[in-house]
Amino acid sequence: MTDIFRDETPLMSLDDDTLHEECGVFGILGHPDAATLTALGLHALQHRGQEAAGIVSYDGTKFCSERRMGLVGDHYTNPVTLAQLPGDRAIGHVRYSTTGDAALRNVQPLFAELEIGGIAIAHNGNFTNGLTMRRKLIADGAICQSNSDTEVVLHLIARSRSASSSDRFVDAIRQMEGGYAMLALTRTKLIAARDPIGIRPLVMGDLDGKPIFASESCALDIIGAKFVRDIENGEVVVCEIQSDGTISIEAFKPQAPKPERICLFEYVYFARPDSIVGGRNVYTARKNMGINLAKEAPLEADVVVPVPDGGTPAAIGFAQASGIPFELGIIRNHYVGRTFIEPTQSIRAFGVKLKHSANRAVIEGKRVVLVDDSIVRGTTSVKIVQMIRDAGAREVHIRVASPMIYHPDFYGIDTPDADKLLANQHATLASMCKYIGADSLEFLSIDGLYRAVSGAPRDPQAPLFTDHYFTGDYPTRLVDRDGISNVRQFSLLANNG
Amino acid sequence: MTDIFRDETPLMSLDDDTLHEECGVFGILGHPDAATLTALGLHALQHRGQEAAGIVSYDGTKFCSERRMGLVGDHYTNPVTLAQLPGDRAIGHVRYSTTGDAALRNVQPLFAELEIGGIAIAHNGNFTNGLTMRRKLIADGAICQSNSDTEVVLHLIARSRSASSSDRFVDAIRQMEGGYAMLALTRTKLIAARDPIGIRPLVMGDLDGKPIFASESCALDIIGAKFVRDIENGEVVVCEIQSDGTISIEAFKPQAPKPERICLFEYVYFARPDSIVGGRNVYTARKNMGINLAKEAPLEADVVVPVPDGGTPAAIGFAQASGIPFELGIIRNHYVGRTFIEPTQSIRAFGVKLKHSANRAVIEGKRVVLVDDSIVRGTTSVKIVQMIRDAGAREVHIRVASPMIYHPDFYGIDTPDADKLLANQHATLASMCKYIGADSLEFLSIDGLYRAVSGAPRDPQAPLFTDHYFTGDYPTRLVDRDGISNVRQFSLLANNG
Amino acid sequence: MTDIFRDETPLMSLDDDTLHEECGVFGILGHPDAATLTALGLHALQHRGQEAAGIVSYDGTKFCSERRMGLVGDHYTNPVTLAQLPGDRAIGHVRYSTTGDAALRNVQPLFAELEIGGIAIAHNGNFTNGLTMRRKLIADGAICQSNSDTEVVLHLIARSRSASSSDRFVDAIRQMEGGYAMLALTRTKLIAARDPIGIRPLVMGDLDGKPIFASESCALDIIGAKFVRDIENGEVVVCEIQSDGTISIEAFKPQAPKPERICLFEYVYFARPDSIVGGRNVYTARKNMGINLAKEAPLEADVVVPVPDGGTPAAIGFAQASGIPFELGIIRNHYVGRTFIEPTQSIRAFGVKLKHSANRAVIEGKRVVLVDDSIVRGTTSVKIVQMIRDAGAREVHIRVASPMIYHPDFYGIDTPDADKLLANQHATLASMCKYIGADSLEFLSIDGLYRAVSGAPRDPQAPLFTDHYFTGDYPTRLVDRDGISNVRQFSLLANNG
Amino acid sequence: MTDIFRDETPLMSLDDDTLHEECGVFGILGHPDAATLTALGLHALQHRGQEAAGIVSYDGTKFCSERRMGLVGDHYTNPVTLAQLPGDRAIGHVRYSTTGDAALRNVQPLFAELEIGGIAIAHNGNFTNGLTMRRKLIADGAICQSNSDTEVVLHLIARSRSASSSDRFVDAIRQMEGGYAMLALTRTKLIAARDPIGIRPLVMGDLDGKPIFASESCALDIIGAKFVRDIENGEVVVCEIQSDGTISIEAFKPQAPKPERICLFEYVYFARPDSIVGGRNVYTARKNMGINLAKEAPLEADVVVPVPDGGTPAAIGFAQASGIPFELGIIRNHYVGRTFIEPTQSIRAFGVKLKHSANRAVIEGKRVVLVDDSIVRGTTSVKIVQMIRDAGAREVHIRVASPMIYHPDFYGIDTPDADKLLANQHATLASMCKYIGADSLEFLSIDGLYRAVSGAPRDPQAPLFTDHYFTGDYPTRLVDRDGISNVRQFSLLANNG
Repeated sequence: MTDIFRDETPLMSLDDDTLHEECGVFGILGHPDAATLTALGLHALQHRGQEAAGIVSYDGTKFCSERRMGLVGDHYTNPVTLAQLPGDRAIGHVRYSTTGDAALRNVQPLFAELEIGGIAIAHNGNFTNGLTMRRKLIADGAICQSNSDTEVVLHLIARSRSASSSDRFVDAIRQMEGGYAMLALTRTKLIAARDPIGIRPLVMGDLDGKPIFASESCALDIIGAKFVRDIENGEVVVCEIQSDGTISIEAFKPQAPKPERICLFEYVYFARPDSIVGGRNVYTARKNMGINLAKEAPLEADVVVPVPDGGTPAAIGFAQASGIPFELGIIRNHYVGRTFIEPTQSIRAFGVKLKHSANRAVIEGKRVVLVDDSIVRGTTSVKIVQMIRDAGAREVHIRVASPMIYHPDFYGIDTPDADKLLANQHATLASMCKYIGADSLEFLSIDGLYRAVSGAPRDPQAPLFTDHYFTGDYPTRLVDRDGISNVRQFSLLANNG
Repeated sequence: MTDIFRDETPLMSLDDDTLHEECGVFGILGHPDAATLTALGLHALQHRGQEAAGIVSYDGTKFCSERRMGLVGDHYTNPVTLAQLPGDRAIGHVRYSTTGDAALRNVQPLFAELEIGGIAIAHNGNFTNGLTMRRKLIADGAICQSNSDTEVVLHLIARSRSASSSDRFVDAIRQMEGGYAMLALTRTKLIAARDPIGIRPLVMGDLDGKPIFASESCALDIIGAKFVRDIENGEVVVCEIQSDGTISIEAFKPQAPKPERICLFEYVYFARPDSIVGGRNVYTARKNMGINLAKEAPLEADVVVPVPDGGTPAAIGFAQASGIPFELGIIRNHYVGRTFIEPTQSIRAFGVKLKHSANRAVIEGKRVVLVDDSIVRGTTSVKIVQMIRDAGAREVHIRVASPMIYHPDFYGIDTPDADKLLANQHATLASMCKYIGADSLEFLSIDGLYRAVSGAPRDPQAPLFTDHYFTGDYPTRLVDRDGISNVRQFSLLANNG
Repeated sequence: MTDIFRDETPLMSLDDDTLHEECGVFGILGHPDAATLTALGLHALQHRGQEAAGIVSYDGTKFCSERRMGLVGDHYTNPVTLAQLPGDRAIGHVRYSTTGDAALRNVQPLFAELEIGGIAIAHNGNFTNGLTMRRKLIADGAICQSNSDTEVVLHLIARSRSASSSDRFVDAIRQMEGGYAMLALTRTKLIAARDPIGIRPLVMGDLDGKPIFASESCALDIIGAKFVRDIENGEVVVCEIQSDGTISIEAFKPQAPKPERICLFEYVYFARPDSIVGGRNVYTARKNMGINLAKEAPLEADVVVPVPDGGTPAAIGFAQASGIPFELGIIRNHYVGRTFIEPTQSIRAFGVKLKHSANRAVIEGKRVVLVDDSIVRGTTSVKIVQMIRDAGAREVHIRVASPMIYHPDFYGIDTPDADKLLANQHATLASMCKYIGADSLEFLSIDGLYRAVSGAPRDPQAPLFTDHYFTGDYPTRLVDRDGISNVRQFSLLANNG
Repeated sequence: MTDIFRDETPLMSLDDDTLHEECGVFGILGHPDAATLTALGLHALQHRGQEAAGIVSYDGTKFCSERRMGLVGDHYTNPVTLAQLPGDRAIGHVRYSTTGDAALRNVQPLFAELEIGGIAIAHNGNFTNGLTMRRKLIADGAICQSNSDTEVVLHLIARSRSASSSDRFVDAIRQMEGGYAMLALTRTKLIAARDPIGIRPLVMGDLDGKPIFASESCALDIIGAKFVRDIENGEVVVCEIQSDGTISIEAFKPQAPKPERICLFEYVYFARPDSIVGGRNVYTARKNMGINLAKEAPLEADVVVPVPDGGTPAAIGFAQASGIPFELGIIRNHYVGRTFIEPTQSIRAFGVKLKHSANRAVIEGKRVVLVDDSIVRGTTSVKIVQMIRDAGAREVHIRVASPMIYHPDFYGIDTPDADKLLANQHATLASMCKYIGADSLEFLSIDGLYRAVSGAPRDPQAPLFTDHYFTGDYPTRLVDRDGISNVRQFSLLANNG
């Protein structure tokens, strides 16, 4: 998968062949700069969602909410906006839509006023029984305002008969299935929860003795917070400000324990290279993928060229393992404006060139190895190969630092329909290679990938990771998909200005 | 009450001494230009609310909603916006906030997806048991997204066990008390309802055989629709598109009948002069108020000057009855920009002058009678009198075409706290006159007002109109006010970008 | 001319039949709140131009300029904007474009840096030799950045060999012909000038001993400044801050004296009713027009109805002189949004109804006299008459408080092409009346108009006013029009973002 | 110099330690998609200026101009904007302000209407006699509207007595000194010119037989145009559409020839790595700088870490020459929003971390070599070193791929005042090293740099490049600087909305 257009959301629609994850979350309790720190944490998590961002704070009297389309830095660095988020506790969210369209009413955190006081929730992941639960609630008189399946959790909390907000929260998540890393903010509590097998990541940090939760450790680094530990799969952590100002922290597992299976794509593509996910540095894992790839699919060539920026760590590994020089053969234009989203047709035709150009001087007459992190539909790969050939390459070989993708995701990754995936459109590797126009094409094996991340090959009896997109081995039930109605439409309301 | 700043919402905050009503509603069923006609109807009702406007349409497949802060003409004349409201049925709403702050989430129509299909509602008026019902619903697990008490109706509809949407609607309004003119749009029905004593107005019209409902008849005139009749107090009218395209209309009264008591302030100030409210022309009623005022409080003077624009009809009546010439002694600046809302202090100090100026040539050396429609707090009257004196008036007399206001409203009029009302701040008329700085001050009597509108004095046993602001005679129970908790705060969520 | 859409610029394009004047000017020297006072003065002059507004101030070190499209109140009440206009001297301008399109580069005041220091100028009026001079300058190597003919004056000042800025200013205006009221601001001077026959108005005021100049006296009233006197025709007044902080004021007439002939349309339509123009109150003049009209064209009728707002003073006069009751038979909607400028065709079709509605109760079955201030093309009159007939009038008579318009203006009034004028499209009054659809149509005579304003009929040998639109008697040469090239295009540059 | 914040203009103000160049230019003659191709070319040149962009086209009848603050992709991909730029000839400009503030009136291309027809010019570089000439022109009656010294050229063209536009253009540039690559567009001609010693680059290309000029070859690559040749130093090329549609191309050198001395900083930092400047690939030159640096300043270390993105090519060269592994030790956040420009102080404090983070896994316990392209003030270097130390580096060594900077530029590079330069603030390398906090600090020698670019050391008698920032050897007279008045202020007009 090339992440050619990864850093500027709108271009997705222009020339995109990547997978998208829906969200990143951040929360902090007891710090006087809660909203500012949340904004910084979300900025560090921006790679997990560039479509919209929201923050909810509580100042001891009222909950305050700011939700905006666009980047964190576009809104949440404004003193006026931050001033509207007073208080020493806040949670925030960056999103990329999977379920629910992009309308502002779907931007998280979502808030509800309950009998016991307000509650805000922020969610990374996807429920595999979200639609089913939503239909039940509506039949029972609930009113849904957003398209987001996160709202279902809010309704379940509202309808719980438990006394405390944290008990109600646990009641609610017990009824949900799928992958989630979720934060909740009540008047006195900051609650964190991770799904039973831990598909989506969630870490705990500490800043001046105040608890922090974030999707990735890079959000701790930006504010100088200490990494404490990963939230475990199936774990709920409840932090509460006591009447004397101290903060209590209670952790428990309300559901029967299962083995952890974190999503492999966090290592392949989603997480930031400097993050520690599941105790493993992402950059090192990616470089190992390139090293293993060089061993599995060696070749003679003159230069190793990364497809920027996703392929760079693997390309460095590939170059070191193969001894072939690493060169910047593709130059990236950092200035792609947001509004390229709806260019004229005449400009759209320039596609990949708007963001990349071949560096002819290091390509002309050379045997080039392009190293990419993954390939989804292959559409961008076709254009990249053509661009490299136009620049005079003698041979173009593609090495992909992950296996072929065959199956859709239901846990928060926005995958194209299965029949659009390159691996499903071609019967053989040779056919794929021909379609892309390369001289050779090789993918890293699933065992090679497992080894790069964990040091050991995949154990089919007890795989360490969620890997169904490669293997078809879904780690949970798929209630909505396998139910009687596989309706995709979430709401009858088309737009909502 | 001077309506000096009536036509530009933001100025309200600058130098305002008026009452505000919250809403106007409009709906049409079966017409191919439903959204455009709704926009025009709302434009004609703009005087009933300038803060925000919304339209919901249904095109046979989906409900479409556009809700915006600002004037109808600012948004709903845009082809792009109207194109997002397809379908042959629509309801719309202009609002001035009474309960619920100005945030977009409170802008009506409100929409909910029910098990039986979507429903949108638009409401003019206020419930006297809205808070009480809201608390009950939240205790029962409902989630409130808006601050609007209209949302309560939506929850009651969602929770009704009746089969049809119109039965559910009736179930809901039966539980609500207060003043309301309400419209609902479902997939096939347009429903109109007026509260049991008919406090807020609602008329039915007809355009090319298609039913229309609107708060005032002027909304029918602008689109060339015929006036059919007033919706009666306590009446519900259900219009439904049948499978053959014809429209059935059914009217009924689900609650025990009571005598009608329409709000007197519709005649004094709110309704547009060219509207027919309760069968009576508003302009004629206001002119009659001036005629009666001239009889009740005659004086010798040189010129009759209206306080524009609210006082003009009464001033014409006063001039004709008194024989004193009518002159434009106050000139209005029509170009007050919207953004005067937050002027610098140096500009704010110019207050009333930003919108009005004395026309010295017709005032200098004259005995001036200023005719105004009503006085609320008197703050603007003080400035107007000073301005007239500065222009060289020999004497300044004020004649107010309605009685003194003593009591707050709970049916959709935004009144200041009782102790802010001029009538409650001064023990005597002489004290009020001195405060305002006039040479004399007289108010129309309640009987004079009744006679101007209906031809007969007030019957204390069976008053024809809702008139508690003058008399203290509230026409319904005040459940929220008299309940155990008189909490005003509707939501813990302070803002919601 | 009906001013139906006068108060909201954009509607001009919708359904407009008015004349437009290009500008209003305001300047003040030596007052610490110079920019704020200028903003207020421009606000009071907003009726002279709603398209754009600009202010230039000087703070002792640098000139500061803010120029914006839109109303004064939209921008210049913002503390941030005003803070960017420091200093104790400023001039400002509101404009309606005659020559020069609406682009920001044409918004005044215009500024130039000269060898002797910066100078800003603001101009109301139009030069009859502007194009001719512009061509000469360009041939001589001048670069024109705006389309405005005011820029020509700036070039002439820049090229003058006189030592002082005021001498250079005089050198420049001596070369220009036409109608102008002009202000200039240099580092130490505020200069005012009026054309040799005084077509456009300009008054001098005083606030706390500081000199003020403004197009109309209403701009003095709003800030509580004293009216000092009219600037005389052909006069230049130079105010200068001396080194000791005192202000010197010098007045002189650099050109041979001619009799004053102020533009009659200032009285008929442009000036605000409360202004004193040439020593005469505008409201009183307009009421007199109605009185004279009632004498010249009497009739039997039931109600006198003003076409709001321009026709109201004349209608009051007409009613008083004729004894026919004055009634508000046309109700105006004050809430026409700015963005009605580009409505959908379906909304555009509602034309005049968007802003006015007939008040049926005072019209139905009546013989109605509509009083308007003037008629230009007659297009709106047709719609107004139809609206009144639709409301059930038995007869509709039109009385126009000024003569027929036959000739275009070249002094700052934006007139349609001559062949579009109603008076030129019909050979007889009867034909006009039939076109408009009225039962009778009468215009005030030129002598009746002169009498209403000055008390005496027109002296053809020495007319007191500029009146060519009625009479064809142009008061100056028309150099551009009668020159060898009557090119209208001012610039080859089409747009300039 | 770290280019940490290079790709998002606003951040410059946050934590910036780079040099900025003012402009890039692009022009095309005779192609039906002239404006679209110009937009694409400017997009490829965006690294040369991100503050504003403008395009002027000519469609056979009129010149059309669009000038906007912001990125090319923000505006010029909009079909509406492009539709306002019709015609088959256009020139465009991206700018970073050196002289002239950021106001829109300074955005190029600048346009003037001359007697012989309109002309637009776009300029990259800076005149060393711009102020002197400007003062002369103003003394002679010229009016300057912009602060840009490019406007001086426009005035000289306007005042030239030559008959043809190209002769006038040559008259004008003959009077100017300094560094420039300039394009001009008249009704029939596209003119390109480069200063006598060729400080700023300018290339000629060909698309379907139509001539193109651009600052760098990467602007040809994006549209698939052929590279034809560099415009030579001192050369003027005039392309003209003939009456039969063919295009004539005439090249000449109007001034006495001098040896070419292209700006070295184009190789060090400004030009895009894939561009060919003066016949040399920029990436290769930079990689050579790293190779030479490894030879000049060898050390023992564990990892070579580039300071992204400017240091990456040199780091690759350094790693290959030294045998020390190349690793991504600094991770860049691509999502820095534009509005970080005015962050709250609390966010500003996070400075460099908003855009970069240390990748602890490859740094902890390691001896790190940071390779950067240049150091200006050193302020960012201090923060980067601290960040690397905080991530656990055992040693931090800095290797800079260019010499120390001592002298300001006057040819289009925006340098800080001389006393702010790191090299001038410290007497010794050891002192600099200590200030930055590194364990060692080494700069590439001037000979090492010359060798990296040209293969040979610097010849002090005839240096191949402009290199005064390193050596003090200015290649031209500095008229403004050495003149009687060294005034920096260009205009008395502070702002111009």
